[in-house]
Amino acid sequence: MPSFKGYYETKNLDPFTLEKAYEALKYERSTIGYYDLPTSSLDLCEEIKSTLLSSTVFFNTIAIVGIGGSSLGIKAIDRLLRASTPHAKKIIYFENSDPISIAYESSRIEFAKTLFVVISKSGGTVETLSIFKYLIHKFDIDLTHSSQVVVVSDEGSILSQFADYYHLKRFVIPSNVGGRFSVLSAVGVIPLVLAGFHVEGVLEGAKSFADNFWARKEEHLLQKAAFYVSNAKVSPVNVLFSYSDTFEEFGKWVVQIWGESLGKRNARGERVGLTPISLIGSVDQHSFLQLIIEGPLNKTVTFMHIEHSRDELMIPELSLPFLEKSDFVNGESFNTLINAQCQATMQSVLQSGVSVDEITWECIDELSVGKMIMYYELLTSAAGALFEINTYDQPGVEHGKKILESYFTNK
Amino acid sequence: MPSFKGYYETKNLDPFTLEKAYEALKYERSTIGYYDLPTSSLDLCEEIKSTLLSSTVFFNTIAIVGIGGSSLGIKAIDRLLRASTPHAKKIIYFENSDPISIAYESSRIEFAKTLFVVISKSGGTVETLSIFKYLIHKFDIDLTHSSQVVVVSDEGSILSQFADYYHLKRFVIPSNVGGRFSVLSAVGVIPLVLAGFHVEGVLEGAKSFADNFWARKEEHLLQKAAFYVSNAKVSPVNVLFSYSDTFEEFGKWVVQIWGESLGKRNARGERVGLTPISLIGSVDQHSFLQLIIEGPLNKTVTFMHIEHSRDELMIPELSLPFLEKSDFVNGESFNTLINAQCQATMQSVLQSGVSVDEITWECIDELSVGKMIMYYELLTSAAGALFEINTYDQPGVEHGKKILESYFTNK
Repeated sequence: MPSFKGYYETKNLDPFTLEKAYEALKYERSTIGYYDLPTSSLDLCEEIKSTLLSSTVFFNTIAIVGIGGSSLGIKAIDRLLRASTPHAKKIIYFENSDPISIAYESSRIEFAKTLFVVISKSGGTVETLSIFKYLIHKFDIDLTHSSQVVVVSDEGSILSQFADYYHLKRFVIPSNVGGRFSVLSAVGVIPLVLAGFHVEGVLEGAKSFADNFWARKEEHLLQKAAFYVSNAKVSPVNVLFSYSDTFEEFGKWVVQIWGESLGKRNARGERVGLTPISLIGSVDQHSFLQLIIEGPLNKTVTFMHIEHSRDELMIPELSLPFLEKSDFVNGESFNTLINAQCQATMQSVLQSGVSVDEITWECIDELSVGKMIMYYELLTSAAGALFEINTYDQPGVEHGKKILESYFTNK
Repeated sequence: MPSFKGYYETKNLDPFTLEKAYEALKYERSTIGYYDLPTSSLDLCEEIKSTLLSSTVFFNTIAIVGIGGSSLGIKAIDRLLRASTPHAKKIIYFENSDPISIAYESSRIEFAKTLFVVISKSGGTVETLSIFKYLIHKFDIDLTHSSQVVVVSDEGSILSQFADYYHLKRFVIPSNVGGRFSVLSAVGVIPLVLAGFHVEGVLEGAKSFADNFWARKEEHLLQKAAFYVSNAKVSPVNVLFSYSDTFEEFGKWVVQIWGESLGKRNARGERVGLTPISLIGSVDQHSFLQLIIEGPLNKTVTFMHIEHSRDELMIPELSLPFLEKSDFVNGESFNTLINAQCQATMQSVLQSGVSVDEITWECIDELSVGKMIMYYELLTSAAGALFEINTYDQPGVEHGKKILESYFTNK
C-alpha cells in the first residue's frame, strides 16, 4: 500500500485549519458525487459483466473518443496496470483535434474488431463530436442499434438523447460528479472493465483510502493541503516527481485535477490556485532538477516511487575497460538504482531548502492505484475548501468556447 | 517559416538591455560552441554519408542509449519530422533507469537489425552506462571492432577511451557545447542522419535564423528575453502552449534548455530562474487553461501553432440528431479547427490579463525545425546573459550524484 511521509514543517499549522477542511469535505459529501463512486460503481461493474461483456467479447480494441476528464483518468489507469494485465485489450485514444494524431490513430483501427466508447459529460464537446463524426464517416458506421458504439454522458445531455434516438447502449455520469473527478464513474469503469482490467480492485483501494480518511486515519492529507494552501504565495508551484515512466499519464491526471480545480477566483474575487508540474525520474533529473535546486524557492516537491517493481531487471556484473567508475551499481537491480536515485535526489532537494514529501508505492497494483486516485481527489477537495472556492466548476474556460464558435458562425 | 508576434508591452524595456544581451552573446560566441554547429555539422553529415551510411544500411532500427541532452533533442526532431519522413528508420530510446521501460523497449529490439548509438557527453552517466551494460549482456554483443555500436562523447572521456579500446566508431561532442545545447552536434546529427532524416535542412534552418539574429533582424527575440527576465518575479512561470501532439517532445526539449540553463545562483548568490511548462493544445485546454485564466497572474504564455498541416483531414458535413449544436464546424478541416481553438484560447487568455506571445509555424519542415531550435537556444542565452549567470553549467545536480554513489559504496 502507498505510504506517505512529509518533510515539511507542520507544527505551525493551525489545528483549526485541519478541522475546517475535514468538516467542509464532510459537509459537501452529501452533494458532491465522487465520494460515493467506489461503492456505487461496483454495481456498474456487475451490470457491465452481466449485460455488455458477452456482446463485446469479439472486439480486441477499444477506441475512446473523449478529452480531458473523459480520457486522462482512463489513460492513467491503463498505463499503470497494463504491465500486470497483459491480456487487456488494446485501447486507442482519440482526444485532440490534431489532424496528424487523428489520421495516425485511425490508421491503427481494424474496424470490425473495434468498440467505440464516446465520452463527454456535457455531451457537447467540440473535439469529441467532430472526431466522432469523422469516425462515423470514415468507417461508414451504421448507428441504428449499433453494438459497436457505447455512449457515456450526463443524463439528458444532447449526446444521451442522440444515443437513445439510435438505440445505442449508454451509461450515465452522475450529475454531481465533475469531469475531472469522474474516473471512477462510468467514464473509467465502462472502458476499463470492457478492456479486461480488474476495476473492482481499483474501487476497493479507493474505498479503503476514503474510509480511512473519514475515520481520521489519514491526517497527513489534511496537513499537506493546509501546508500547501497556507504557503501558496511563497510556493505557488507544486512539483510531482514520479520515478517510473508508467506514472506519465497519472501525472497528467494529477495536473488536471489540481490545476483546474484550484485555479479560481475566491468569494472575494481574488485569484487563487497552485500550479502543478509533473516530472518523471530519473529522466527529468537531467532536465528540471537544476532549477529546483538552485532556482527561486517557489516550489514544493513530492517524490513518488515504487518499492517493488514487477521487472527484476539486473545491471550485470560487467566491468568494462575505462568505465569502471560506473561499477558501483554492478549486480544491483535497475529498481534498486531508480529508488536510490529518488532518495539521493530527494536528499539533495531537501538540503537546498525546498519543502518535500514522499509517497512510496509498495508496488503497482489495483488497490494502490485506487488509493492514490482517491488520495489526490481528497487532497484537491481539502485544498479547495481551504482556498474557499468552488473546487468543482471551471468558469474560466467558457469564454474561449464562445469565441471559438463565433469564429465559425460569423464567417 | 515560423513567424513571431508579441502581445506584451515592450515600450518600457530599456533599449540598453537589448544591447547588453546582444553584446553578451556576440562576446561569448568565440567561446560557446553551439553557435557554430549549423555550419560545422554540415561536414559531419558529409562524413557520415561517406563513411558510415553504407555499412549501416542493413539496420532498420536505431537504439539510442542516452538521457537528458543526449536524447531530448533527438526525440523532438524525430517526432516533428516523422510524418514527413515516412521512410526513416525506427528509433528506440533507452533513457530511464526504469526497469519496466527497459524491459519493454528491449523486447522491441531485433538484434541483428539494430544499430546501437551510445551517447553521453561526460561519458560517465550512470543510467546510460548501466543500460548499455544490460544490452551488452542481453544481446551478447561482441564489442571488438563491432559495427553495431557507435559512441558519441567528449574527446578523452572514459566512454571515448572505452570506444577506442574496442575500435568502435566514435564521434566527438565539441567540449564547448553543453549537453542541452548539443542537438545540432554529433549527438543529434549521427542518429538522425543514419535514420534517414534530412538533417542538412535542419542545419540550414538553424543557420538562417542565427544569421538573421546576428544581423539584428530578429529583435523580437531580445525583446522577449528582456521582458521575461525583467518580469521574472511577477511572472516566474513561462508556459509554452503548442497546438499539435507532435510538439510533445519539442516541448520537453524547451523545458530542459530553459529550466536547466536559467535556474541558477547569480554572481551575487541570489537564486534566479524561470519555470517552464509545456502544454499541448487543444487537450490541455481541458486541463490547465482554467488555472491560467482565473488563477494567480504569475505566468506568461506562448501560443505555438501550425498554419498548414500535412493532413487535410475534414470534419464531415454530417448533422446528427440532437448534436446539431456542433454543426458549426461541419465541412471545416481539423487543422482549421485546431488553429481556431488556438486563436480563441489566446484571445481569452489575453483578455484575462496574461502576457502572451504567438509563434506561427507556416508548416512543419526541416527548415522550420532548425529555426525553432536556434530560436530557443538564442532566447535562452539572451535570458541567461540578462540574469548574469553562467547559462551553460548545472552545478546544482552534482551533489545528488555524489549522494547516490555513497549509497552503494558505503553499503
